Amino acid sequence: MKILTVEEHILSSNEEQAKKNNDRLNEHGILAINMMSSPGAGKTSLILRTISGLKTKFRIAVIEGDIASTLDADKVNQHGIPVIQINTASSCHLDAHIVGKALDNLPLNDLDLLIVENVGNLVCPAEFSLGEHKKVILLSTPEGHDKPYKYPLMFTKADAVLINKVDLLPHIDFDMSAFLQGVSALNSDADLIQISCKTGDGLDKWFSWLEAKIAK
Amino acid sequence: MKILTVEEHILSSNEEQAKKNNDRLNEHGILAINMMSSPGAGKTSLILRTISGLKTKFRIAVIEGDIASTLDADKVNQHGIPVIQINTASSCHLDAHIVGKALDNLPLNDLDLLIVENVGNLVCPAEFSLGEHKKVILLSTPEGHDKPYKYPLMFTKADAVLINKVDLLPHIDFDMSAFLQGVSALNSDADLIQISCKTGDGLDKWFSWLEAKIAK
Repeated sequence: MKILTVEEHILSSNEEQAKKNNDRLNEHGILAINMMSSPGAGKTSLILRTISGLKTKFRIAVIEGDIASTLDADKVNQHGIPVIQINTASSCHLDAHIVGKALDNLPLNDLDLLIVENVGNLVCPAEFSLGEHKKVILLSTPEGHDKPYKYPLMFTKADAVLINKVDLLPHIDFDMSAFLQGVSALNSDADLIQISCKTGDGLDKWFSWLEAKIAK
Repeated sequence: MKILTVEEHILSSNEEQAKKNNDRLNEHGILAINMMSSPGAGKTSLILRTISGLKTKFRIAVIEGDIASTLDADKVNQHGIPVIQINTASSCHLDAHIVGKALDNLPLNDLDLLIVENVGNLVCPAEFSLGEHKKVILLSTPEGHDKPYKYPLMFTKADAVLINKVDLLPHIDFDMSAFLQGVSALNSDADLIQISCKTGDGLDKWFSWLEAKIAK
């Protein structure tokens, strides 16, 4: 008999459901992205930019994870694409079960790309797979270049790390080479892309990254 | 018989220990502050500024809560004041038990002010009392003015909300009146103080706030 701790049991049950979600997405040929960051790093801005940049090429849907409010989902909804709002109340991360329920309510036959915006948190979302194909971490420059050292798991698991708000670099103390070195020490496979959702700088590289993954 | 859920049990046990910590701090006449924010909002910078500004008036100690690393504790240590580093590994918040153990290792007879820097997270730290006297929330302007609507519990529980990085206001889209209105709607008792740890703006108001609480 294998005895699981509460934490192991939760994670094991989550992994089973994540596998089901992944199978379902694959059956429909949908690429799913799990987008994670601190509060206010710019996840919603990036999603809105991505919809504007790619909605003529791909059929996109969004799942919005928030503790409370529908502010982000309302913004996405204005683009006329399918969006599901999940309010987690006191839970600080999404899990595979709640994402599975969201999938029940999306038109899976008519999608190429699903972007899941996780709850703003650099800790627990990294532990819970949702069934996604790629984990994308967003770090905004005002948060500081020490974040890989202080929140290592998140950066270890990333397929891509986007450094947002590079337009603020002249006004803050952010050592880009220390940051890039910190990420590479944890995870030499992650792609690193510098962007500004405000000015649009670097978004072409992000769109190319996504397009290459969708094409696979 | 009262049956507690796992969550209720954890919170109830935490509350008991928080009460013990609070009694112990009161016996020694120490004011304890629980400082909470997103990653990178400026908690450590504020603590370093506070030590510089008040260490000739008050005997200060710091407890540093981090997932990993001793980066913040190392910075505090350079000021020659007592500092305890707690690494929580995968836990996204401090709790009263771990803070109780840190109290065992501090010179409680020789302190006036204890600042506890919680793990960078706008969600779970709000649920766990540590035995502190005041909860201080730090919000940095680049995070955006919508945070009270999206992370309400944290703002509901605050005794003071400090708005940091006001030096960046000319370079970002941050609606101060919308932010202040959002906080006030949740919590009309919280004191609101605008600061910049970079330029020093507003820190005199923060020091006065702290001094008034220590004097009580």
